[in-house]
Amino acid sequence: MRFVKGHGTENDFVILPDPDGALELSPETVARLCDRRAGIGGDGVLRAVRTKAAGDPAVEALAGEAEWFMDYRNADGSVAEMCGNGVRVFARYLVDAGLAAPGGWDLATRAGLRRVTLGASGDVSVDMGPPRHLGGGEASLGGRTYRGRRVSMGNPHLACAIDEPVAGLDLTRAPGFDPAAFPDGVNVEFYRRVGERHLEMRVYERGSGETRSCGTGTVAVAAAAALAGNGGDQAVEAGAGAGDATSEWTVDVPGGRVVVTLDGRTSHLRGPAVLVADGEFRNDWLYGA
Amino acid sequence: MRFVKGHGTENDFVILPDPDGALELSPETVARLCDRRAGIGGDGVLRAVRTKAAGDPAVEALAGEAEWFMDYRNADGSVAEMCGNGVRVFARYLVDAGLAAPGGWDLATRAGLRRVTLGASGDVSVDMGPPRHLGGGEASLGGRTYRGRRVSMGNPHLACAIDEPVAGLDLTRAPGFDPAAFPDGVNVEFYRRVGERHLEMRVYERGSGETRSCGTGTVAVAAAAALAGNGGDQAVEAGAGAGDATSEWTVDVPGGRVVVTLDGRTSHLRGPAVLVADGEFRNDWLYGA
Repeated sequence: MRFVKGHGTENDFVILPDPDGALELSPETVARLCDRRAGIGGDGVLRAVRTKAAGDPAVEALAGEAEWFMDYRNADGSVAEMCGNGVRVFARYLVDAGLAAPGGWDLATRAGLRRVTLGASGDVSVDMGPPRHLGGGEASLGGRTYRGRRVSMGNPHLACAIDEPVAGLDLTRAPGFDPAAFPDGVNVEFYRRVGERHLEMRVYERGSGETRSCGTGTVAVAAAAALAGNGGDQAVEAGAGAGDATSEWTVDVPGGRVVVTLDGRTSHLRGPAVLVADGEFRNDWLYGA
Repeated sequence: MRFVKGHGTENDFVILPDPDGALELSPETVARLCDRRAGIGGDGVLRAVRTKAAGDPAVEALAGEAEWFMDYRNADGSVAEMCGNGVRVFARYLVDAGLAAPGGWDLATRAGLRRVTLGASGDVSVDMGPPRHLGGGEASLGGRTYRGRRVSMGNPHLACAIDEPVAGLDLTRAPGFDPAAFPDGVNVEFYRRVGERHLEMRVYERGSGETRSCGTGTVAVAAAAALAGNGGDQAVEAGAGAGDATSEWTVDVPGGRVVVTLDGRTSHLRGPAVLVADGEFRNDWLYGA
């Protein structure tokens, strides 16, 4: 089995080329691939399969609009709808491998179509779709309760504004949340305003733990901050304020920097996508033979 | 640049084939290769170079006895003398690549020759040389002082016997030690007797932090426990007791299990060596082009 290792702002992935959907990818195999010492290591797996061969009718219905389906799995083997950094790395892989042309085109995800724009090299921009504001919510961490905003980017987020530097948080343990409010779990972001339309954030991703970055999370915090206006995050309550109609936000994550553009209709995430190495697994390792 | 990713009891390595010693391997490059998110990830790098091309007169002097030199670097880019798990993985790589035959033969390390014994597949046994007992020593962790035994395996160790399960230790920070006693730094092991000639241990490796295993460390704790006899580790003082002349010790580490044999003359370490994948780095990533 061949693979490519890549990352977007240090959110890293094992990319598996599988154009014909021939690969049986069990949760155990995914977890084994993502193991950072006994495997290759990654925050998740990106399987590259032609949309018409996705094996999922809801995805295959997109085959007329998108040639490629990004089958994203978390490091623990669970299935996930979308991953904003993953889309950048996935698109860069397709162009690099000659499976797609530079320019603008759609790819399929479990959260629907995503339009990417990229050249022959360099940053990749992704239309992440409109953030959907779902009102207020709460998370707990280290015995403290944090108020935040629930934002859906196809996957669920809780964006919590804080006043202190995010570097001081202990995210070695999962933040607590009300399972009734988040029946599918939630990615929890903590963010702080560090300048004009400039945020810093850290994220705890469901299924993966703290990661160096989370693409949909960066859009969620930009959307939450925009809704709050320039300087009143703490006061935001569900339904209050319409936010900025069009704005560009710089978001610093532990793994680097991305730029989020909100235009009132949709959101765009622009950032780096780096392919580190190409490889081939030893079958006797992968299948325990 | 080609590589192989492999591990021994989850002590993992990026193996770089470099038979002619053509590779310039800067500390920065090593650190970049070992970065678990932006690179490939590993506890260290094993460069496979013919001994006669090692570029180090002390090593090249071994060329008549050992065809291959294991150039081991820690994840932070620093040079290290030896790595017991690394030797197993290195030997398995050489046999797998057709660069050495199954059987028993010597390889060169900065700590001298090491004899390996292995078949066409399976575990690898390494003659680790005689543990040298250097007397007592101390480390501090979490405000507590631990007495231990200083043991040299070519590289420096401090093996501290404890009574509580090793799982309870917090090794996210480096143990403290007296730099006058360990001018080159030290690998600190904490071990507990869990049965007859059966130990469990955790290790904090200089330059790498806590690892899932440390081959020379497992021999150091077996030697320290053998010196103490079967049941009196705490009472051992420098120079007390000759230990068992010949004994076999099972040592459980977070990444698996190894067997250490002490015969009064030398030590042998037997354990798994797994090659996970073969790969090729993107040059534009590696050299930042």
